[in-house]
Amino acid sequence: MHLFRFDGGRIGLTIDGASYDITEPLGIDLGAWPPVQMVALIADFEKRTQGITRHPRCRQIDMARVRLEVAIEWPNKLIAFPVNYVKHGEEMKSKSRADLSGFFLKANSSLSGPSDPIVLPEYPGREIHHECELGIVIGKKGRNVSREQAFEYIFGYACLIDVSLRGPEERVMRKSFDSFTPFGPWITTADEVPGPGSLQAKLWVNDELRQNANTRDLIVDIPGMIEVSSKVATLFPGDIIATGTPEGVGPIKRGDRVRIAIEHVGEMTVQVK
Amino acid sequence: MHLFRFDGGRIGLTIDGASYDITEPLGIDLGAWPPVQMVALIADFEKRTQGITRHPRCRQIDMARVRLEVAIEWPNKLIAFPVNYVKHGEEMKSKSRADLSGFFLKANSSLSGPSDPIVLPEYPGREIHHECELGIVIGKKGRNVSREQAFEYIFGYACLIDVSLRGPEERVMRKSFDSFTPFGPWITTADEVPGPGSLQAKLWVNDELRQNANTRDLIVDIPGMIEVSSKVATLFPGDIIATGTPEGVGPIKRGDRVRIAIEHVGEMTVQVK
Repeated sequence: MHLFRFDGGRIGLTIDGASYDITEPLGIDLGAWPPVQMVALIADFEKRTQGITRHPRCRQIDMARVRLEVAIEWPNKLIAFPVNYVKHGEEMKSKSRADLSGFFLKANSSLSGPSDPIVLPEYPGREIHHECELGIVIGKKGRNVSREQAFEYIFGYACLIDVSLRGPEERVMRKSFDSFTPFGPWITTADEVPGPGSLQAKLWVNDELRQNANTRDLIVDIPGMIEVSSKVATLFPGDIIATGTPEGVGPIKRGDRVRIAIEHVGEMTVQVK
Repeated sequence: MHLFRFDGGRIGLTIDGASYDITEPLGIDLGAWPPVQMVALIADFEKRTQGITRHPRCRQIDMARVRLEVAIEWPNKLIAFPVNYVKHGEEMKSKSRADLSGFFLKANSSLSGPSDPIVLPEYPGREIHHECELGIVIGKKGRNVSREQAFEYIFGYACLIDVSLRGPEERVMRKSFDSFTPFGPWITTADEVPGPGSLQAKLWVNDELRQNANTRDLIVDIPGMIEVSSKVATLFPGDIIATGTPEGVGPIKRGDRVRIAIEHVGEMTVQVK
């Protein structure tokens, strides 16, 4: 299944190629703030969506006619792993490595959707880079989750672009500008991603392939990231883990189009403004 | 006013020395998850609390008989400024400085309340330090807020202990363990803090005074922190800024009692487990 947000916080679901607006059947209050409706839904997903396409107020929709929004807008946290591919560590001449350093965080407010542009701040002379990443969405509350149990805690996956201003300031800040975490186009539920440990992830800038790597080359693999982060912090439904970028990062500039595609997960193209 | 959470997510208010349970008058759903009720209240505070003590379902409470909980559990973000006092930078031999480095983040899930213990993780041979900080609570959504406007965006203040595992990993992770951000005991609204730029903040471990400094010695002052962070990220009502610690940080161990007191703001004592 694909789970998504669209047209002002509405919630949609794609099952077997057909897409549905499930906002009304779920009883979602579109005016409620802060926008945590999707986080609440993920926490209780099976129960709340069971048989929902037969609900009298469920209506089918045409994906070509909706404006997709960021699927998760206000998680508990947006975790990110630094230098999680050996060759990216080499290109950055970095002393960090995910297996030694653990995780950092990006601001929730940096999350943006597949229809939103990346808005570059004014930092004359500085480079702002694209980083192509697989995003993991947590489905279940957990602390001290072992490698063996890790996949039980995964709700799904999404494409994630970790936009990064290069420079001397705190990395967390350089990566936390509004619109610096395009996430989407939807969440693909874990049952539809057969081998998350060997997914090809690609990123193009203006149709030029810049990044092309496989999650099998992750230094800390998917269960490892869940083990490491849950050793420190309780993971909550809706939490996002940005799994780190492979080699091939490079600058983006105004007017560029950035396309990201991850096997079995999805594909999206965002503009740079 | 003091605004607080207690006894399972209930919301309370202290006005002119009298404390009230305003959960029922506000129509708070105590079962709602995720716990963003306080964030929603802060966003619309004046309107929702106007004349609330005269509401028929408002009842007075005895503060000695309630169990205080963390006032804000699920903000959009918990911003933190590194090395924001010159003498702390010297004691840490740090290359960071808040005016050059900007901010980092702590995990929301590290927030804990005045009645909750700090739970130390097992890291044999490592030190875990107390850091005494003033916490700022944002009251209004804002981006690119100028120094001149900054105080309009502040809802209130609280005591904040930034607990930190020392070591080589990502600082964000070392500071994001569950219970590593005691915050409270309540939020004191900004109108009751006459000079936030010259507040004395003290921290004791087992009655021994370890930190004692004044916010006038901040490298980046309060309006500066709001300017710097809002240049990067949209600030939302309920966002918390940990303003950085002065000199005097040091190790805590199981069985310790840590007391923090900030002039005009409040005081709380937490156990170390």
